[in-house]
Amino acid sequence: MVIDIHGHVSAPPELYAYKANLLASRGYHGRGNPGISAHRMEEAAQRHIRLLEGVGTDLQLISPRPFQLMHSETPESIVRWWVEANNDVIARQCRDHPDRFRGVCGLPQTPGGDITACVEELERCVKEHQFVGCLLNPDPTEGTGLMPTLDDEYWYPLYAKMVELGVPALVHSTACKNPRETYSAHFITEESIAVLNLCKVESQVFQTFPDLHIVISHGGGSVPYQVGRWRAHRFREQEANPALEAFDESLRRLYYDTVLYNQESLDFLFRMVGTERCLFGTENPGSGSARDPRTGAMLDDLKPVIESIGWLSQADRARVFEDNARAIYPRLSVAAATR
Amino acid sequence: MVIDIHGHVSAPPELYAYKANLLASRGYHGRGNPGISAHRMEEAAQRHIRLLEGVGTDLQLISPRPFQLMHSETPESIVRWWVEANNDVIARQCRDHPDRFRGVCGLPQTPGGDITACVEELERCVKEHQFVGCLLNPDPTEGTGLMPTLDDEYWYPLYAKMVELGVPALVHSTACKNPRETYSAHFITEESIAVLNLCKVESQVFQTFPDLHIVISHGGGSVPYQVGRWRAHRFREQEANPALEAFDESLRRLYYDTVLYNQESLDFLFRMVGTERCLFGTENPGSGSARDPRTGAMLDDLKPVIESIGWLSQADRARVFEDNARAIYPRLSVAAATR
Amino acid sequence: MVIDIHGHVSAPPELYAYKANLLASRGYHGRGNPGISAHRMEEAAQRHIRLLEGVGTDLQLISPRPFQLMHSETPESIVRWWVEANNDVIARQCRDHPDRFRGVCGLPQTPGGDITACVEELERCVKEHQFVGCLLNPDPTEGTGLMPTLDDEYWYPLYAKMVELGVPALVHSTACKNPRETYSAHFITEESIAVLNLCKVESQVFQTFPDLHIVISHGGGSVPYQVGRWRAHRFREQEANPALEAFDESLRRLYYDTVLYNQESLDFLFRMVGTERCLFGTENPGSGSARDPRTGAMLDDLKPVIESIGWLSQADRARVFEDNARAIYPRLSVAAATR
Amino acid sequence: MVIDIHGHVSAPPELYAYKANLLASRGYHGRGNPGISAHRMEEAAQRHIRLLEGVGTDLQLISPRPFQLMHSETPESIVRWWVEANNDVIARQCRDHPDRFRGVCGLPQTPGGDITACVEELERCVKEHQFVGCLLNPDPTEGTGLMPTLDDEYWYPLYAKMVELGVPALVHSTACKNPRETYSAHFITEESIAVLNLCKVESQVFQTFPDLHIVISHGGGSVPYQVGRWRAHRFREQEANPALEAFDESLRRLYYDTVLYNQESLDFLFRMVGTERCLFGTENPGSGSARDPRTGAMLDDLKPVIESIGWLSQADRARVFEDNARAIYPRLSVAAATR
Amino acid sequence: MVIDIHGHVSAPPELYAYKANLLASRGYHGRGNPGISAHRMEEAAQRHIRLLEGVGTDLQLISPRPFQLMHSETPESIVRWWVEANNDVIARQCRDHPDRFRGVCGLPQTPGGDITACVEELERCVKEHQFVGCLLNPDPTEGTGLMPTLDDEYWYPLYAKMVELGVPALVHSTACKNPRETYSAHFITEESIAVLNLCKVESQVFQTFPDLHIVISHGGGSVPYQVGRWRAHRFREQEANPALEAFDESLRRLYYDTVLYNQESLDFLFRMVGTERCLFGTENPGSGSARDPRTGAMLDDLKPVIESIGWLSQADRARVFEDNARAIYPRLSVAAATR
Amino acid sequence: MVIDIHGHVSAPPELYAYKANLLASRGYHGRGNPGISAHRMEEAAQRHIRLLEGVGTDLQLISPRPFQLMHSETPESIVRWWVEANNDVIARQCRDHPDRFRGVCGLPQTPGGDITACVEELERCVKEHQFVGCLLNPDPTEGTGLMPTLDDEYWYPLYAKMVELGVPALVHSTACKNPRETYSAHFITEESIAVLNLCKVESQVFQTFPDLHIVISHGGGSVPYQVGRWRAHRFREQEANPALEAFDESLRRLYYDTVLYNQESLDFLFRMVGTERCLFGTENPGSGSARDPRTGAMLDDLKPVIESIGWLSQADRARVFEDNARAIYPRLSVAAATR
Repeated sequence: MVIDIHGHVSAPPELYAYKANLLASRGYHGRGNPGISAHRMEEAAQRHIRLLEGVGTDLQLISPRPFQLMHSETPESIVRWWVEANNDVIARQCRDHPDRFRGVCGLPQTPGGDITACVEELERCVKEHQFVGCLLNPDPTEGTGLMPTLDDEYWYPLYAKMVELGVPALVHSTACKNPRETYSAHFITEESIAVLNLCKVESQVFQTFPDLHIVISHGGGSVPYQVGRWRAHRFREQEANPALEAFDESLRRLYYDTVLYNQESLDFLFRMVGTERCLFGTENPGSGSARDPRTGAMLDDLKPVIESIGWLSQADRARVFEDNARAIYPRLSVAAATR
Repeated sequence: MVIDIHGHVSAPPELYAYKANLLASRGYHGRGNPGISAHRMEEAAQRHIRLLEGVGTDLQLISPRPFQLMHSETPESIVRWWVEANNDVIARQCRDHPDRFRGVCGLPQTPGGDITACVEELERCVKEHQFVGCLLNPDPTEGTGLMPTLDDEYWYPLYAKMVELGVPALVHSTACKNPRETYSAHFITEESIAVLNLCKVESQVFQTFPDLHIVISHGGGSVPYQVGRWRAHRFREQEANPALEAFDESLRRLYYDTVLYNQESLDFLFRMVGTERCLFGTENPGSGSARDPRTGAMLDDLKPVIESIGWLSQADRARVFEDNARAIYPRLSVAAATR
Repeated sequence: MVIDIHGHVSAPPELYAYKANLLASRGYHGRGNPGISAHRMEEAAQRHIRLLEGVGTDLQLISPRPFQLMHSETPESIVRWWVEANNDVIARQCRDHPDRFRGVCGLPQTPGGDITACVEELERCVKEHQFVGCLLNPDPTEGTGLMPTLDDEYWYPLYAKMVELGVPALVHSTACKNPRETYSAHFITEESIAVLNLCKVESQVFQTFPDLHIVISHGGGSVPYQVGRWRAHRFREQEANPALEAFDESLRRLYYDTVLYNQESLDFLFRMVGTERCLFGTENPGSGSARDPRTGAMLDDLKPVIESIGWLSQADRARVFEDNARAIYPRLSVAAATR
Repeated sequence: MVIDIHGHVSAPPELYAYKANLLASRGYHGRGNPGISAHRMEEAAQRHIRLLEGVGTDLQLISPRPFQLMHSETPESIVRWWVEANNDVIARQCRDHPDRFRGVCGLPQTPGGDITACVEELERCVKEHQFVGCLLNPDPTEGTGLMPTLDDEYWYPLYAKMVELGVPALVHSTACKNPRETYSAHFITEESIAVLNLCKVESQVFQTFPDLHIVISHGGGSVPYQVGRWRAHRFREQEANPALEAFDESLRRLYYDTVLYNQESLDFLFRMVGTERCLFGTENPGSGSARDPRTGAMLDDLKPVIESIGWLSQADRARVFEDNARAIYPRLSVAAATR
Repeated sequence: MVIDIHGHVSAPPELYAYKANLLASRGYHGRGNPGISAHRMEEAAQRHIRLLEGVGTDLQLISPRPFQLMHSETPESIVRWWVEANNDVIARQCRDHPDRFRGVCGLPQTPGGDITACVEELERCVKEHQFVGCLLNPDPTEGTGLMPTLDDEYWYPLYAKMVELGVPALVHSTACKNPRETYSAHFITEESIAVLNLCKVESQVFQTFPDLHIVISHGGGSVPYQVGRWRAHRFREQEANPALEAFDESLRRLYYDTVLYNQESLDFLFRMVGTERCLFGTENPGSGSARDPRTGAMLDDLKPVIESIGWLSQADRARVFEDNARAIYPRLSVAAATR
Repeated sequence: MVIDIHGHVSAPPELYAYKANLLASRGYHGRGNPGISAHRMEEAAQRHIRLLEGVGTDLQLISPRPFQLMHSETPESIVRWWVEANNDVIARQCRDHPDRFRGVCGLPQTPGGDITACVEELERCVKEHQFVGCLLNPDPTEGTGLMPTLDDEYWYPLYAKMVELGVPALVHSTACKNPRETYSAHFITEESIAVLNLCKVESQVFQTFPDLHIVISHGGGSVPYQVGRWRAHRFREQEANPALEAFDESLRRLYYDTVLYNQESLDFLFRMVGTERCLFGTENPGSGSARDPRTGAMLDDLKPVIESIGWLSQADRARVFEDNARAIYPRLSVAAATR
């Protein structure tokens, strides 16, 4: 079975028109709702499902489109309404297609906002909608400010709830208002910042939450490729304190998805962090949905790419395609049962 | 003939989903387009036309939904693309329904931005699309900063182009990010600021541009009702300088639409500024599209309301419903001829 | 008996020279005092009284000149000293002319400052000086920042004390440092913001303080004139929640003074909110103290203007000129007794 | 003859009430004027003259009260109107009492504002009112920002005009909004900054304007007392570049007034900079107008204090009391002649 | 015996290279240490000691070079590490040369930071290293912000600890990022602000901490020279409240060092505050280490300068050179005993 | 021959103590100089040379330690002095060891500063010191602001001078004051931003300067590893405009050094961009100077690591170790000749 843990919901334009209205009115029109008919919803879902069928994905975990999450907008109420509307659309698609989708919720994160709102929305989505995970944006300022990094105690209540509910987070930033970086480049920057802060020796996150599971999008940003730099730093720290774990060991406290879109990088990722720490993800349809004019292949059709990596054993592939997902998303089967 | 000079386009959600995408991507996906099919476009137009037919409006001037114009967003390119997309949808509806609609363009205004972009878009819309007027937002900062007021020379290149092309502006602010005011309350504040600054003795706008026509939305904000305050101030200024014109005279350099939604206020407006300065406007469908549960009437069905004001002469009504519009929107007939 | 609830103290230049000194020294010279002799004080009072006699006002409630209150200046001590000096001058004039004046105190409001200082000054003025009301400035930032709106719990301790003491507030902003608005235009903006926030469905102010009395200056800003806009919004809210009260009902939870300076607007005000909610006010001498060169009348001589509105009954006039004031300013007679 | 070059005008409260009105209205009431009657003006002048007579001052140069000059307020127009009103009151007193007063003008300085306004007001005061000097505020931000220091070319147009007209400047800051310093302490800080920047080796002011005369208020701030610190620095600079002038030589490019209020400090000043560089000043009435309870003497009665310094020669005294003033204020006699 | 209470440590470049590394790495390399060999340390100490021997100083109190203390840098950890490294170098030199040096610690002050860190470092230095005093920087923002002044309760925990440990503070600012003032000029400004705020009538510092000893660097900034200004202000305050102490009395609650570099200023200081309040200080080697090319003397060779002031009695000199230091630095002898 | 194009100068602590002094004094002490003796200089150089010998590097291009460059400090003069001091130390070492070192200069970049200063320093270093290249910091704000990206015309004068002189730039950021990123992590972020902006279709840099050579440090940041993401974006852009070059082609307009510290990443880099675009670099001694405790090897001993990559041909190795450097650093041999 092929489980794609990094997908984003395909919704009809009504959902995004609803967002445009929230932004324009700043909430003055009240919460309202996207008003999506069952027919329009199903049209969007079917387009999505056809793509998954075309590439052999059996089950996809779908979350809100991250770059649409507008965490830095005000007032807080429109961020919350918007995130909830996204999660509700996802829940609806999951209910409509229980054999195809599982839900991963967005959280109503805001710059420096009370994390309680996120804890509550996570609980709502898991308990009421049987969601199996959440997105975690390390930068709700969207490139305009300075959030506490992921090792900060600011995030602990959310981590505690994740552990309690048995759901992992997929680290994924949203939009970016810093004109030097596109949102897409900011993804990589923020993932790298996330990994480095979670792995640094000062971080107490995994000591405090041994059962916490965190997946880094897009193969871990820059960190696997730049690993020598961080190993060297850790070796110097170990000279002063030999009890410290190696940087590679720290790196393997996290998980990584395979949203990398080319064989060389995937091969590299598996070598650097090990298939025990990699989960199949494609974001299909999404950033990788482009056809290589030379080969005619879609870049986000990653299953054959992974299968073409000769040195991967059957067990390696099983881990990447299914086993690791089942291990850290225990609610995958729970969710199946409740429908 | 009943001409409603204050209408906003009815577009399908695809248009606003396009806006949501521009905001989320900050332009990274390129300009793109809303991708609205002819069928979806016509659905939206027909809903709108049925409303106009129901209230007896023959011709409506349609502009972008002001609160959706996002003038304060960055980068400038997405503001421009978005405004142009709105204007293009309007042009399409006007071409599809030449007996029903005329176009009034939004302008790519930005906080402190070069006004040239606005001049160019105005020219494009008038020359290529036969638009008859434009919206003018006195506060492209959307409640977050301090724009030069409308008497400032900053605006002169736009005024010069308006005069050259023979098109008036409808003063209308857009969204509002100041949490103390909804966008709807900010409309009234900004209209009042516009009137007071254009009418103050220091303003040289109408001396410089004697043929400039400016229409103030929503019956002139607070100014007609608070007129005594401004008369008193002018009387004191006249004591020092008897050559100054009376405040009421200044007030009648501007035009006012009838978007007020109740008989008493409309009666009051006509008395205060005279029917020579009033133009029929309803914003239907829009802010006034609500049914009074006691009477069952829609609040923006203003034709019967105006007709019920006993003291208005036939000539008064003709002025309000048609003649004034024809006088200051000379391109109304030009536009008709070109199709 | 004619009671004018909106008057401001006439003080000799010594008072304002004292303010200039506080601002220049930022308090370094200590609190000091304006040093106004009884003679100079009485000169100013007599000029004022002659004006009231000339227009038939029997009793006027006098407060500090709002535009002079400098709530946004620092340090807080000079704001406090200045407000207290104003209140003390008012108390002195009231003691000197108990048949002519009652005191309405200014409050030492500062941007985001602790409201306790205001509660204490209110108590001092009412208990020691027999004042009958207070001014309430919704924007102590004077156009430079973002204060909590009047429905915010920030203001509750003051409301509680007002109810306890049985004194109403006259909503009235002070100066304005925003260059787009004069202080006079800012009055109207802030009154409108005050009404809309106190009347919105989210506000719990009158549920929490059923006996609270709030008077809006200058006939309610723009709201009575723009009422259709707010009715429409409420009708839409009522569709979702029919239990909500009508907007006109919300509007009648507040009171309005008659400081409008022209018959049409006064007529309009009485029609829109009812004479039960209107109190005679003139601000004489003040913003309306200008002579209409055509009629020779002073604009703030409002008694004959109101009397000339034919449809007002005897009871209507009694309410406006006296009864409403006696009802919501119960200390009017208490104060008389204590002299 | 005793010439006191550092006096400030005594004006009736009407002048400062005018300022309070400008600040409250931000100019909305127009320029207006203080409306001071000849009688009230003369009352104030007589009080002032009696003080001068009491201490043996023959002629005093009077300027606006510096701490009242409000250079940091906005809009620029009220700063200008206020400065001009002060200068006009001074001109009036000088015309009324030509044997007693000469005018020193304030300048309409603003934070970073165009220095042209100051050049023009200086010219107006000298040419129309026969003023003999000007005040120069090194910090029109009044403790809130970072102005170019006095060696910056920003100030050159003013220096050029001073030289052209033959008038010196008295360096004197105004109010201070920095809560750590009173305006009085800020005087000393700014004078010290002025001296150090004008004297530093990088300054080209006196090379560029060899005929420029600058007087530092209050005995030069801290610099004469702290002179060792600056000598040491210069000695080190001279090691690298022996052509540099000694710091004491730089110091003697400037002039200093005697507004110090105690014999020891005056004695010290004369020793450190030489009587050739000192001008009699008292600021009477002003900061020093306090009676020492032990001696009964007013602190600003400085003539006997200076006369009590035994080592001063007759020539020294003549220089301090009269000759230096006549030398650097050449218009002192011109002014006398024009009356 | 000659005790110089104002000296700064002479350290080899390794110490400052360590600082440069902390600033460049912002602490990423960990705390590390300057890595100064005993040989390099002793070289620096010997150069310093030879200077002291040359001028007849028996014992010098050495603290970190103030302008190097970088209190305004971030993160807080590098400020703390740097201050501690300085203190540790000082402790090392004091241990190496117990007959020559006593330690005065820098404190890890930061803009608005928790004062607890300073209390702890003070305790560490006194208890572990037998330090005898501390530096106190009134402006850890280094010219970029607004710290509470020294009379503010913010500083009370530090004052309490100083009293408990029996150590005084030397008030001394550090660097200055305000481009209008050099760090050296900022010293004088901040010392003046310190004196004026500690001496003002509102300050409760010495009422709360009667045993607190505070020494002002560089002869008290501008205050002794400008004393007339402050006396006058106090005389006026005393008129209102005769119980207030005289300003000179307030001034004598503090102590002053002799770091003035010229005889006239030293003579002046002794006259103004009395030798009971003066402590010998030279900052040798430091700002005064420059040779007067005319006399050939080093400016910081102050012992002969003071001895040349004829009116000083033997007791005066003893107080300045030794007795006052022993009185307010009681740990001078304690420290001696512990070695 | 092995040429290491990415080395940084080893200087004695005197150099960094000089920096600490500049920062503490903000330039008040004048330019001064580090005062490094020939002996201390040679000590540092010999330590460095021994390391190079140990790893088989024949020639190293040395530049200032980037994280020490303090581009964001003020005033501009201390940045300039500091950069020049670094370049002068480098020139000295190159003159002392012409067979071992070539100079690469730092530039006096400042946030938004005039690029002319950089152009001049580049010219000075190349013409006077025979330097062969320069460092280019894309973020002189050091994580605190928003510089124009490297495709902006802001940089064109520098590019023009680089082409004129025939020297390439090594893109390398300096320190980082953003607390979410260490300087080391900021290197990677800024290199990625540099690559993406130089490679984007809107950039005209290489069209304008076909002979410009830019080397990206540390193997290109994250871009080679994340290449699929950028290919996909370009494929979509090519759908609209087939004339656009492929992203991989854009990527090969730049050069990349080998400062990656592990075989897997180096192997990956060579595969992704081709050995034609890679230059040997080690930064030895520097960030990679740490010993792997398992293997005992230093991480920055990269020659054997590269040699161990089996699939590299002799030509590949020659290109990486020498040929590419000779091609884009044409002054390598010129410099050799001039000694």
